[in-house]
Amino acid sequence: MITAAPYELYYWPTIQGRGEPIRLAFEESGTAYVDVARQPEAEGGGTAAIMRFIKGEEPGVIPLAPPFLKHGDLIIAQTANILQYLAPQLGLVPEDEASRLRANQLMLTIMDMMVETHDVHHPIGPGLYYDDQKDEALRTAPLFLRERLPKFLGYFERLLARDGYLVSPALSYVDLAAFQLIEGLRYAFPKTMFAFEPRVPLLAALHARVAGRPRVAAYLRSARRVRFNERGIFRNYPELDVAPDPDIRF
Amino acid sequence: MITAAPYELYYWPTIQGRGEPIRLAFEESGTAYVDVARQPEAEGGGTAAIMRFIKGEEPGVIPLAPPFLKHGDLIIAQTANILQYLAPQLGLVPEDEASRLRANQLMLTIMDMMVETHDVHHPIGPGLYYDDQKDEALRTAPLFLRERLPKFLGYFERLLARDGYLVSPALSYVDLAAFQLIEGLRYAFPKTMFAFEPRVPLLAALHARVAGRPRVAAYLRSARRVRFNERGIFRNYPELDVAPDPDIRF
Repeated sequence: MITAAPYELYYWPTIQGRGEPIRLAFEESGTAYVDVARQPEAEGGGTAAIMRFIKGEEPGVIPLAPPFLKHGDLIIAQTANILQYLAPQLGLVPEDEASRLRANQLMLTIMDMMVETHDVHHPIGPGLYYDDQKDEALRTAPLFLRERLPKFLGYFERLLARDGYLVSPALSYVDLAAFQLIEGLRYAFPKTMFAFEPRVPLLAALHARVAGRPRVAAYLRSARRVRFNERGIFRNYPELDVAPDPDIRF
Repeated sequence: MITAAPYELYYWPTIQGRGEPIRLAFEESGTAYVDVARQPEAEGGGTAAIMRFIKGEEPGVIPLAPPFLKHGDLIIAQTANILQYLAPQLGLVPEDEASRLRANQLMLTIMDMMVETHDVHHPIGPGLYYDDQKDEALRTAPLFLRERLPKFLGYFERLLARDGYLVSPALSYVDLAAFQLIEGLRYAFPKTMFAFEPRVPLLAALHARVAGRPRVAAYLRSARRVRFNERGIFRNYPELDVAPDPDIRF
C-alpha cells in the first residue's frame, strides 16, 4: 500500500548521523521528501518539530529518538525499520522475501557498525563530551581499527566476493548505506582507510559505483548534503586515527 | 509462506545473549525448534555448527555472527530480523502493517538497549576481558544507570501509559523481549532496579504477566533456559551496580 501523503523525515538538522541512509534513499530514487527539521522553525521546522513527537504530543507511535518518518498516519522510527518500509516504494529492494530478509539483515549489520564507530569517540557514554572521555577513546581506537573495522568490512567484502553483490545485482538501499559507511570511515580515519582499503577492493568499488550515480553525485555536491563534522557518528579526530598496523587482522 | 522445514536456531550454547528473545518466542508459542549448537557435536551440534555458516561453508546468506535461523533454504541473521520473520508464523504479532512496523521499531530499541547494557562492562571493546577495562567500566556504569537506563525504560513506560500496550493488547514478541530486558537488568543491577522499578510500574507489571504465562514459566524452570552468567550481555558485577541516585533522571 502506497500512501499519496508526503514523506516527512524528522532528523537532527546539522548532522548526517543515522538519518543519512534515509536521505540517500530519497535522493538516489529521485523521491520528493521534506527534511522537516531543516525547514525554518516559523514554518513548523527546526528541532522543535522533532521534540513534539518525542514528547508524545503528536498521534502515532512515540519515537525514542530521531530519525523517524511521518507518512500519512504512520510514524516509523529506527533507520533500518524506516528503510525497510520505504525501499519497496522507492524501488530500492527486490520483491522476493529472501532478498528483503537479506537486505534487512545487512542493513542492521551496517547500523551495528555505525554504533561501534560512534562509540570509539564516546566509549564511556553519550552524556559526556569527547574531551571528557578522550583518554578512554585513545584506548578504544586502536582496538576498533585493528579488530572491529576489519571484521565488519571484511565481512561485506566476503559477501561481495562470493555472491557478487550485497543484496542483488540491482542497486539497493543497503548499497547506499554501505557507501555512507565507507564515506564516513574515510572522513574519520583517513590514514587507516588509505592503508586498509586495498584489502577490500570490491567494497571500495561498490563505494565508487554509488558515488558515481548521477543523483547521488548531485546530492553530495548540493547544500542538501550536511557536511561531515565533529558532532555526528563519524568524527575526524586525528589522534584516534592511529598508524595502520601491517598485521591488521582480517 | 510457511515452510514445513524445522526451525533451526544457531546461537552460542552457553549464554542467553541476543539469542534469548528468539528462544522465548519459540517457547511461548509452543513451537518445536532445534537449538543446534546445544546438541552434541557428534550429532552436528556444538559451536562447530555455527562456524560452518560464519565461514561461508554453507549455502545461503553468510551471517556475520549468531544468532541466525535456518528455515528451509533461508538463512536469516540479526535478532530483530529473525523475530520479524518468525512472529507472524508463531502468532506473536498482529497482522496489520502499522503494528508490524511498531513491533519492529520497539524490538530494535530493545536491542539497542541490550547493546548499551553489554557495553557497560565492555566500554573499551569486545576484544579485551572485563578485568582489562574495569576502570573504564566503573566510570561508565553510573552514567548508564542514571541516564540511559531511565531513558530507555521510561520510554517503554510512557508507551504503556499512553497506549496501554507495547504493540497491541495481545501478547507479542516485543513483550517477550521486554521481559528478557527487565529480567537481565534485575540480574545485572539488582540494587538499582529495586530502587528504580517503582518508577516504571507498568513495565514491571508487563514483566510479571509474561513471567506468569504457563509456557514461559515452565521454560524458565527447565534445563533449556541457560542460566545468567558472566559471559553474556547481563553480568552481575556488584561493583558496577552503584548505589541508586534519588535524583535519577526520568
